Amino acid sequence: MVNDSHEPLDASFNALAHPIRRGIVERLALGPATVGEASRDAGVSKPAITKHLRVLEDAGLIERVVVGRTHQISLRDGALGGVAAWMERQRALWERKLDVVEQYIEEQRSSTPTEKESQ
Amino acid sequence: MVNDSHEPLDASFNALAHPIRRGIVERLALGPATVGEASRDAGVSKPAITKHLRVLEDAGLIERVVVGRTHQISLRDGALGGVAAWMERQRALWERKLDVVEQYIEEQRSSTPTEKESQ
Repeated sequence: MVNDSHEPLDASFNALAHPIRRGIVERLALGPATVGEASRDAGVSKPAITKHLRVLEDAGLIERVVVGRTHQISLRDGALGGVAAWMERQRALWERKLDVVEQYIEEQRSSTPTEKESQ
Repeated sequence: MVNDSHEPLDASFNALAHPIRRGIVERLALGPATVGEASRDAGVSKPAITKHLRVLEDAGLIERVVVGRTHQISLRDGALGGVAAWMERQRALWERKLDVVEQYIEEQRSSTPTEKESQ
């Protein structure tokens, strides 16, 4: 179960486990932005932002283009796909399981005579 | 942007940032299991499994019922919902943005005369 192929998902989930990094991703989901624009609401120091951006870059979630003095960052195309697909798969399995339980309860209910009918 | 309401998502993403913990969630998405069943393929020691289960429990992703000597664990209903909803929202925004870019390119293409037409 443990091998290198898990590493990208590990890094993605880890990168998203912080509100400031999720805030940056939320901003970039609307389109590319300068570092200043993407981190405006974070309320932390520039060095802290630099560290958070590094985590997002190392996880392959964002990319950076430097044009003169401006660092523009954007979500990498398909970057969220791996995590979203994994989540969706688990949720679908789990919900299918719940449906089966619900169907079972429903079947039990309709095959059991009600109190009135059995009198 | 940073407040206590982010903590559940932080804990969920962090809990899912490890292949052994994701493996346990994958198993539990199929239905409840004993600790032994859910961690059979992990290939690590029981104390290591205990620590991973604690992380999953603290994040509110799984719950444990102790019946006699058997510890049965299951996914908590709706536990994956927060993370899945966040992921889906970002992906939808990002894909809508890509659609807009694609539409723009398409419009440019169809409004620009081709080389043949302009001759």
